[in-house]
Amino acid sequence: MHHPFQFNIINSSKLSRARTGQIVTPHGTIDTPNFVAVGTNGTIKALDSLTVEQIGIQLMFCNTYHLMIQPGTDVIKQAGGLHSFIQRKSPIITDSGGFQVFSLAYGTVKDELKSRGQKKTNNCVLKINEEGVLFRSYKDGSKILLTPESSVLAQKDLGADIIIPFDELPPYHIDPTKLKRSLERTHRWQKRSLDTHMANRADQAMYAVVHGGIDQTLRAQSAHYLSSLPFDGFAIGGSLGKTRVELFNLLDFLMPHIPSNFPNHLLGIGDLESIDYAVRAGIDTFDSSHPTRCARHGLVFTSQGTKKITASSHRYQTEPIDPHCVCPVCTRYSAAYLTHLFKAHEMTGYTLATIHNLHFMVKLMEQYRAAINNGKI
Amino acid sequence: MHHPFQFNIINSSKLSRARTGQIVTPHGTIDTPNFVAVGTNGTIKALDSLTVEQIGIQLMFCNTYHLMIQPGTDVIKQAGGLHSFIQRKSPIITDSGGFQVFSLAYGTVKDELKSRGQKKTNNCVLKINEEGVLFRSYKDGSKILLTPESSVLAQKDLGADIIIPFDELPPYHIDPTKLKRSLERTHRWQKRSLDTHMANRADQAMYAVVHGGIDQTLRAQSAHYLSSLPFDGFAIGGSLGKTRVELFNLLDFLMPHIPSNFPNHLLGIGDLESIDYAVRAGIDTFDSSHPTRCARHGLVFTSQGTKKITASSHRYQTEPIDPHCVCPVCTRYSAAYLTHLFKAHEMTGYTLATIHNLHFMVKLMEQYRAAINNGKI
Repeated sequence: MHHPFQFNIINSSKLSRARTGQIVTPHGTIDTPNFVAVGTNGTIKALDSLTVEQIGIQLMFCNTYHLMIQPGTDVIKQAGGLHSFIQRKSPIITDSGGFQVFSLAYGTVKDELKSRGQKKTNNCVLKINEEGVLFRSYKDGSKILLTPESSVLAQKDLGADIIIPFDELPPYHIDPTKLKRSLERTHRWQKRSLDTHMANRADQAMYAVVHGGIDQTLRAQSAHYLSSLPFDGFAIGGSLGKTRVELFNLLDFLMPHIPSNFPNHLLGIGDLESIDYAVRAGIDTFDSSHPTRCARHGLVFTSQGTKKITASSHRYQTEPIDPHCVCPVCTRYSAAYLTHLFKAHEMTGYTLATIHNLHFMVKLMEQYRAAINNGKI
Repeated sequence: MHHPFQFNIINSSKLSRARTGQIVTPHGTIDTPNFVAVGTNGTIKALDSLTVEQIGIQLMFCNTYHLMIQPGTDVIKQAGGLHSFIQRKSPIITDSGGFQVFSLAYGTVKDELKSRGQKKTNNCVLKINEEGVLFRSYKDGSKILLTPESSVLAQKDLGADIIIPFDELPPYHIDPTKLKRSLERTHRWQKRSLDTHMANRADQAMYAVVHGGIDQTLRAQSAHYLSSLPFDGFAIGGSLGKTRVELFNLLDFLMPHIPSNFPNHLLGIGDLESIDYAVRAGIDTFDSSHPTRCARHGLVFTSQGTKKITASSHRYQTEPIDPHCVCPVCTRYSAAYLTHLFKAHEMTGYTLATIHNLHFMVKLMEQYRAAINNGKI
């Protein structure tokens, strides 16, 4: 039977590894390279699904871990899946929950870097073994066992267009032997995830997650092994380094090892500088809550750089925050009004800034695609 | 010169004092009786102006006190007035700031009832005398003198279609002699407000505020005196009683004293039971943050009564929260999704519930007008 998921490369740059393409899913097409907005709980914070589609966000990232706990995947399954539940017509990607449970266990990479590798086991995580991870729900204290099988079955209930196998996220500070052992386990888990997926593939695509931390040998091994399995695409996960330079070096090294005829995804990266590098390195999609979180903190992206909306310079600014912007916010509201809404702590301000920043990302990615298609990147 | 403000009565009920009418303003027509949504800081909380207009809210109430402090009326004046600043094309009403400064001085009626009349002077209010009220800005500690003149000039900067004279809001627990003295001062202040307004009337209308607490003699005196001045309408303010029964008795007594050929407004009342009574008593408009505040607390108005959105009965409800509702939320999202958004503490939930409740109020008022026009109320 014909599977609806396809990836077509439109142009490959002669100047860099950048390429444009189209990912075809049952819920529509994603032009690549593209930014993926994060809606952890089944909503982009402060926006409803209709607004998100009007902005032109082609792929939305939802977190299985959060949705398992609240409202529960049974609720979403009964509603006919995530698209129906949140009323999104366009493509959705879900992760496996692995990132969140291991962040609970080890803290985030950022926490960890701050604590200089003093691994702190959060008591929400009760057990990690070959079977999977047993943890306690932050909502009601109930015990939840997350395994490759249960993660994929949860993602079947959610019904996103693209799903992710359950992987182990080792801490950044880990000795090489342990990192190797973690990689082997993550590969076994991804194989189990893929088997569970293929037993009931439906219309979903599954991307592998290439691991190996910042160890080039392990990264190459991971890319090589995962490429041998029938995944539909390749995500880059695990520790991506503690600085942008480490990330960029990793991309330079790793991308030639990722099969170029499949779509790829860079997990959790979305600052503008990293996007600029990642596009040239050949990344097709990347998700990040950075633009939406910035918006809620009053940091708006403009053609003149990032601006702090509460800066006193905007107090009397009757022009929009970005006079060149054609978004529904800039074509309607002044910078002074946005400044006021933030100073008055009005939620409306968070909504408007989020619309603006996501619109900025949509336009930015259009520009990247045009530049690649025109042979300029 | 022709003044753009007009009031036309369409139908007067034979069964009650209810009537339908149209208030014509420079920014459009308000069908009466109607509910006035409150957007204290120049925004209905969690909505933007475009959404509010799409819902069909014909009159929006903004608070001069809050806007004086943040962003400052100079900012709004420079932007071309409140309509331009907040991008609202439809009518706006502003109050004088009196209610807020006297709430600071005496606490709200609710606080006061709780404290059984133990008057507590909040040290934000520094001085109250014949000139006006001197208070400290909660924002930067600066001293602000609010007088009849400065309040009206601030409302000139804001440029709302309907403005309110500066009045004294005596506490509910006040002895009759003091209440009488307060009423005399409030009349002097309203006369000064009217004089300031008439010196530069522009396109604005000014409603008097009938005072007198729950003393029928004073209420009648107030209505009588204020009717002798060239106000464009009559608001009912001051203490409206500590129970609904007191409010209803007050309306029964007072409404025959209010000139019927002018529009009237009931200040700060918006619960469904009071609205039902007020409409029959002949009230044309009333403002309240009740429907929007309820929405943010997950209380949604439906044709089957008010529902708590987080009730477990909605968890799996794939139907909308009100199957009979045609609002943009009910025609798109399930009760289960709204429940989830509230349980996940997502701002999107506050936005959607607010849209629903305001739409409910718009439809409710349409039904009241139809019932009056059809001779059923």
